[in-house]
Amino acid sequence: MPRVAYVNGRYQPFAEACVHVEDRGFQFADGVYEVVAVDGGVLMDEDGHLERLGRSLRELQIPWPMPVRALRQVMREVARRNRITEGTIYVQVTRGVAPRDFKYPKGILPTLVITSRRANLNPTERVEKGVSVITIPDIRWQRRDIKSVALLPQCMGKQRAAEAGAYEAWMVDETGHVTEGTSSNAWIVTADGTLVTRHANTNILRGITRMAVVGLAQQHGIGFQERPFTVAEAYAAREAFMTAATNYVMPITRIDGAPVGDGRPGPIAISLRHAYRASRTGGSR
Amino acid sequence: MPRVAYVNGRYQPFAEACVHVEDRGFQFADGVYEVVAVDGGVLMDEDGHLERLGRSLRELQIPWPMPVRALRQVMREVARRNRITEGTIYVQVTRGVAPRDFKYPKGILPTLVITSRRANLNPTERVEKGVSVITIPDIRWQRRDIKSVALLPQCMGKQRAAEAGAYEAWMVDETGHVTEGTSSNAWIVTADGTLVTRHANTNILRGITRMAVVGLAQQHGIGFQERPFTVAEAYAAREAFMTAATNYVMPITRIDGAPVGDGRPGPIAISLRHAYRASRTGGSR
Repeated sequence: MPRVAYVNGRYQPFAEACVHVEDRGFQFADGVYEVVAVDGGVLMDEDGHLERLGRSLRELQIPWPMPVRALRQVMREVARRNRITEGTIYVQVTRGVAPRDFKYPKGILPTLVITSRRANLNPTERVEKGVSVITIPDIRWQRRDIKSVALLPQCMGKQRAAEAGAYEAWMVDETGHVTEGTSSNAWIVTADGTLVTRHANTNILRGITRMAVVGLAQQHGIGFQERPFTVAEAYAAREAFMTAATNYVMPITRIDGAPVGDGRPGPIAISLRHAYRASRTGGSR
Repeated sequence: MPRVAYVNGRYQPFAEACVHVEDRGFQFADGVYEVVAVDGGVLMDEDGHLERLGRSLRELQIPWPMPVRALRQVMREVARRNRITEGTIYVQVTRGVAPRDFKYPKGILPTLVITSRRANLNPTERVEKGVSVITIPDIRWQRRDIKSVALLPQCMGKQRAAEAGAYEAWMVDETGHVTEGTSSNAWIVTADGTLVTRHANTNILRGITRMAVVGLAQQHGIGFQERPFTVAEAYAAREAFMTAATNYVMPITRIDGAPVGDGRPGPIAISLRHAYRASRTGGSR
């Protein structure tokens, strides 16, 4: 268990860290969050995550709980107090505590919770073998660009994946196109070698790692198309992978039980993974 | 402020009642709830609410936090300790506390929170004047039959209503049909006097008050159709009203700024309101 959590201005023993039962995060999922990877002490894509946090807050008319500069310091302090050099920092902001009423209450302060945990960000075996995904219908709401804590459908999807022995579930819209994973963005490399991932509008989350990998693919001269792809295209793909803050670039070697390409992690996925990590931390492994 | 809240086996001073920051209700909206009206000391439609709570829990594979019989007792005790004879009892159950991971953790106990507040369930002026609603797109997920705390879209909708000076927002699906209000079911009486409300599948919540009112309409020989209705039909309706645990049957006299019928609460709404209350509490006002 972590040692310390930050809650509304105080560093508290983790076991005792709590929020009020009328916190709107608890009663209404009226809050947003970010997960930042800490790798070799580096906060990966910190700027991108904080920018997106600001965007999520704006969309919900929730004020910043503290200036961004102070928030950066608290994030580091929570990692430090938990002795995390490889792991995650979790930041959650909710609208705050108020008598239960759907509409936004006035004159309350947002709730800020920051925790940090150890995690293996470079799981050699998993990367070398690749992971499996299943496809499921995307039953989520229509503002998937807001990184809210209303994550119940994603939990249900991840649970379905786990029950099927898979690592992740790719969600599929009513036209048969993959939107994204329950906690990751979805990518394929088509038979002709084109890298494809869906464009970011309100249908998917604006993945921070996704954005970085788009940039790296362009730097590396990899043919790239930003467009939706179908499940059938994914089945026929040469490679598949996912991107996420804590998974970086993770090769996918099975979709719905069938191997992707030759069933081994693809070269583009592997090279983008190394490039991502090298560009952020100064080292490739 | 209420005096007491029940949290996981303990009656606590309300101001100190809290849940852990890694409660899955707070981090994932991985929980469900019910609101029960208390009117003249009677727990309105208690059986229906507890049955629906059981259904929501089953759908999410969350066990009952305690036997239903004990839950009934605790609900009463929370109301008693808060001296509530007219108000609400709020019951929330989440999957529990676990290190943050989307899939359902094993071997944890659910979290149970029960609170109770005073409320005016029979607001004479509001009932006599009727309330106004606006119509907005329904952007919610597709399992609206699960009464989960993933209520962010409903909060956004209620906030839009409040900003427009309205009491409630009716959500409209992609085919132009009203699904329901952000925290109520939607009803109209058509020009030819037929009572209409949408059938309850996964598109709307199975309203407990809705069910009771369906029964009362049949008892009173009111012509009734269970089907979706369009916004255009609502504009042309003779009457409109909403049903909800804490609003009973509330007449709607304006939709998107225009009067419904002659702009006054309709006779069917009024008589169903009286019938509902009389059937539950033994008195009509």
